[in-house]
Amino acid sequence: MKIESLAYVPFDEFERVLGLGVDRVTRTAIFAALSRINCLYMIKLAGSGHIGSSFSSLDLVSWICLNGLRREAGAFHDVYFSSKGHDVPGLYSVLTGLGLLEFDLIHRLRKLDGLPGHPDVGTPHVAFNTGSLGMGISKAKGMILADRLKGQERRVFVLTGDGELEEGQFWESLHPAAHRRLHELTVVVDHNKIQSDTWVEKVSGLGDLPRKLQAFGWSVDRIDGHDMTAIDAALSRVPVAGEGPRIIIADTIKGRGVSFMETFGHDEGFYKFHSGAPSNEDYLRAADELVREANRLLAGAGPLRIVESPLPPVAQVTGAQRLVAAYGRALLREAERDPRIVALDADLVLDTGLAPFAEKFPDRFFECGIAEQDMVSQAGGMARAGLLPAVHSFACFLSSRPNEQIYNNATERTKIIYVGSLAGLVPGGPGHSHQCVRDISALGAVPGMVLVEPCTEAEVEAVVELCFRRIPESAYIRLVSVPWKVPFDLPQGYAPSPGKGCALTAGSDAVLFGHGPVLLSEAFEASKLLVKDGVRVRVVDLPWLNRVDLEWLRDAVSGVRRVFTLDNHYLTGGQGQMLAAALAQLAPRGIDGVTLLGVEEIPRCGRNDEVLRAHRLDRESLRERIAAALE
Amino acid sequence: MKIESLAYVPFDEFERVLGLGVDRVTRTAIFAALSRINCLYMIKLAGSGHIGSSFSSLDLVSWICLNGLRREAGAFHDVYFSSKGHDVPGLYSVLTGLGLLEFDLIHRLRKLDGLPGHPDVGTPHVAFNTGSLGMGISKAKGMILADRLKGQERRVFVLTGDGELEEGQFWESLHPAAHRRLHELTVVVDHNKIQSDTWVEKVSGLGDLPRKLQAFGWSVDRIDGHDMTAIDAALSRVPVAGEGPRIIIADTIKGRGVSFMETFGHDEGFYKFHSGAPSNEDYLRAADELVREANRLLAGAGPLRIVESPLPPVAQVTGAQRLVAAYGRALLREAERDPRIVALDADLVLDTGLAPFAEKFPDRFFECGIAEQDMVSQAGGMARAGLLPAVHSFACFLSSRPNEQIYNNATERTKIIYVGSLAGLVPGGPGHSHQCVRDISALGAVPGMVLVEPCTEAEVEAVVELCFRRIPESAYIRLVSVPWKVPFDLPQGYAPSPGKGCALTAGSDAVLFGHGPVLLSEAFEASKLLVKDGVRVRVVDLPWLNRVDLEWLRDAVSGVRRVFTLDNHYLTGGQGQMLAAALAQLAPRGIDGVTLLGVEEIPRCGRNDEVLRAHRLDRESLRERIAAALE
Repeated sequence: MKIESLAYVPFDEFERVLGLGVDRVTRTAIFAALSRINCLYMIKLAGSGHIGSSFSSLDLVSWICLNGLRREAGAFHDVYFSSKGHDVPGLYSVLTGLGLLEFDLIHRLRKLDGLPGHPDVGTPHVAFNTGSLGMGISKAKGMILADRLKGQERRVFVLTGDGELEEGQFWESLHPAAHRRLHELTVVVDHNKIQSDTWVEKVSGLGDLPRKLQAFGWSVDRIDGHDMTAIDAALSRVPVAGEGPRIIIADTIKGRGVSFMETFGHDEGFYKFHSGAPSNEDYLRAADELVREANRLLAGAGPLRIVESPLPPVAQVTGAQRLVAAYGRALLREAERDPRIVALDADLVLDTGLAPFAEKFPDRFFECGIAEQDMVSQAGGMARAGLLPAVHSFACFLSSRPNEQIYNNATERTKIIYVGSLAGLVPGGPGHSHQCVRDISALGAVPGMVLVEPCTEAEVEAVVELCFRRIPESAYIRLVSVPWKVPFDLPQGYAPSPGKGCALTAGSDAVLFGHGPVLLSEAFEASKLLVKDGVRVRVVDLPWLNRVDLEWLRDAVSGVRRVFTLDNHYLTGGQGQMLAAALAQLAPRGIDGVTLLGVEEIPRCGRNDEVLRAHRLDRESLRERIAAALE
Repeated sequence: MKIESLAYVPFDEFERVLGLGVDRVTRTAIFAALSRINCLYMIKLAGSGHIGSSFSSLDLVSWICLNGLRREAGAFHDVYFSSKGHDVPGLYSVLTGLGLLEFDLIHRLRKLDGLPGHPDVGTPHVAFNTGSLGMGISKAKGMILADRLKGQERRVFVLTGDGELEEGQFWESLHPAAHRRLHELTVVVDHNKIQSDTWVEKVSGLGDLPRKLQAFGWSVDRIDGHDMTAIDAALSRVPVAGEGPRIIIADTIKGRGVSFMETFGHDEGFYKFHSGAPSNEDYLRAADELVREANRLLAGAGPLRIVESPLPPVAQVTGAQRLVAAYGRALLREAERDPRIVALDADLVLDTGLAPFAEKFPDRFFECGIAEQDMVSQAGGMARAGLLPAVHSFACFLSSRPNEQIYNNATERTKIIYVGSLAGLVPGGPGHSHQCVRDISALGAVPGMVLVEPCTEAEVEAVVELCFRRIPESAYIRLVSVPWKVPFDLPQGYAPSPGKGCALTAGSDAVLFGHGPVLLSEAFEASKLLVKDGVRVRVVDLPWLNRVDLEWLRDAVSGVRRVFTLDNHYLTGGQGQMLAAALAQLAPRGIDGVTLLGVEEIPRCGRNDEVLRAHRLDRESLRERIAAALE
């Protein structure tokens, strides 16, 4: 189904609502209803975003921003932020509605220099960068302790998810807050009962949550998180010095406000509206429901004025390489032949390609919840007991949250396969908490572990076979998640071999080493452009990230005068630095320098093409940079 | 006071006790008393070790190993391990007494190819590598899930500390164990109430521990951990399928068995017997008490036979550089001039040089407990609120446990100083959980953060001033903790400047870049030895670990034909790889190769000299390796 336009609520309608002569409970409820419309608009226009928990939290966020935070000179004096962070489209719709953020930014969610997919302090009124889970209370505590030291007083409201409560840092942060009696701190749990994939209760469950929280010394309340009167009652009371911190469990509904986003059967497979933009059909139905509800609330105050805005056509990608799905198939194949193989997941079954495995081998599939440290150490226990565990999460989390646990496992000299998806700069929409460009560095020195990033589905299959069957060491398999159209084929008969790669193009002016589908594709296209400039670059796919075969390398650079490396990763600790160091050891004749290309600043958020261009890693930029270096 | 010999209980005395015709409670109590004597012996002979919690847990460990674990073909069928790990001398004394470990190993604690300072699976009957806190329950869970999958059944006993319960992973691991009803798992908390520095209650407190644990769905018991009858009663019952996991809070006394180790006033500064060998006086008093108690328990069974063994003289180090103390002084100086500076600690006040700061600025000192993730994110909150936090722990923990939290802070572009002590291969006694040789890699790519390792007290002072005052970026200051006699002086007038270093020796055959007191000293001495071979090596102190000034580097290597780098760190991701990559970019004329020297395998445990030699990083090995490379 095609649609031509999307609908949003213009700023003056928010102004009108804020000026209505109604009580604050009614006003806030109407404001939240309008915000949902714009939140839906932003996510649909962006093409991605987390709608389910933006909607479950929007009544709470609206109340806090309209009534909970004192203002001073046009800005908030008190502080609100979301620890989970992915509900930020809801916050943006509130802040733009309040005139605290430039209203036109609603058209720029997940675009370069627009509104990032997860909170970033570069956006006005955003207190902290969040998006990786479990850090919120700790950050709030630090802010409050700093305030106390400086003799100033602010209230800090933190919103958390409920799946987020599986993270150890959440519990780690609780007791010290009670110990220090941080009355300034109010935590609200957006208890929508569905985490990324499915029901919290089916993942690992939270047990008796109020009892747990009370046992940690916190004052605990429980409310209906969509009952504005209840929210107003629970959050209005201002705590005083001497009281401890307070946590409010707000029972909410994921997708609140849109009937079909609210309904998710207990035995359904996966919740569909955690992330990603709704389909055109779903968008129209959802917008219709939301507008009708807003008009119902506005009642006698006059109907809501809606603005229609064109929906730019979405480019359809065909023939793209889908590495995560290929990984899922390859894992299944390995598991069928090796009963020692088990798979562990941290609430990202769909995003790590594990659904087929989980279905075929339910006894060998372990859903660990959003508890990466626990997951990795459990894998260590399984490996010591003779199994061959494959451990999965997004690369950004897997490489860093359980970093010490991975090292600890490595010192036991067991074999474990780690698989990190969502690696690299793109997709550029989620923002830097999810754009993983530091994993090679963070894990590269783990002893007995090889890091590898395949660039096509075929290479994924071969690398998986190699890692599970043919090498004795542990491995970290790095996977780009975004489907990517790869313009080259790997050479006939090519089979990955540790430390060695394969040439994708011929060329004698320079050689460029890279890894993964995105930047190898850009380099391949750049090399075609450079041919027009009379420059022939040999583009080499080297999937191995922390080791290189020196003899192979000597051959690979023979006859050229300059070497380029290209990392979908920070320059420090990337493949390029490893290769350049190897070249320094070899000191081959005739090479007059190595140029390292890669990520040189914190990843920008935006459309994929915008982000690659902003980092000067798109084909045109690479063409210019390579030509300049060769001059 | 000088002493000539130490006393231990020979193996046949343990055999005699095991054969006594007494009930198992009495037998186990006597066995534990003998084990304490050998545990004291091992730690005194080794010169270091954790005596306080070895003693607090020894009654429990003795009962578990003698009565709790079923045996099969001379080995344990069931599994026991300590999650905290530093109490392993107690376990060694039990295993050697039981004949499960070669008895002569009691003379080889913390020596090369002996018994590691923290558990390592290379030692028979050691299930897991522990020593970094909070991983134990997760590992046990993995083992149990693997057993279930394989259709075998084992009980798993895990001992934890109580300070250890401050770690988030402990809490993260609890609920899923209850959710899966892991009846095979019994956790015993060695609740001695004193963590590394002082009382748990003074650090952050555990609150109502039984209530918390029950709220997580565990079955909770509480016993006197030194009452063998109570231990026997609590641990004898074998759980059955369908029950959940069980945790036993064992109230114990740190230093149990030695009167003056048991007494620690609530308002005393720091507990003295957490780690480190007792003084000669303390040793004699302690041994005397322990032997008298053993004889009292043996009563009619005949007196204990003790063997005297010579105590080798301990070399006295004079004039050593003490970098951590120098850091503490420098921090105090900075804090006096900048009120924004606050210090955060994770239960290592004494080991991170913070005692003077904590005393002078109690309001600006934040003891966060063994909760590194919470600590780092709190620092992030403080920095966003305008403070300049300095964050402290051992390098091994600080660089890896809160790895993602450090990155998250970096993306907020605030300034934070991280200080990791106990960096590098030595001291070699604690073992690889504490020998930090991966931190440069783990943190090197964090954007906006400079990594620096000074080599003398003077350089520490200058680097601290530079990092706090003169550079805009965040910093990670890497500190060797072991006092080290440095045979060189830094050049007159030398002041550290980012990316630049200084030559310690003159030489035109080769240049060697290194960092830190230990390996620069070895390199300096190697260069003196090489002079005798007619080889002149320019040894350069480059304290900057993740950046180098390219112009300075070009000058620094001018006129030599070979470059060496020397890392107190794994080769991957170390300073050497960074420098070699920079040289490849520069491609200076006349250099015929770069040789990277550093740590190439998981750190060995042993005396400092043994460890350096085993890794071929001592002066003699360096002399040979440099000479060989230059041939």
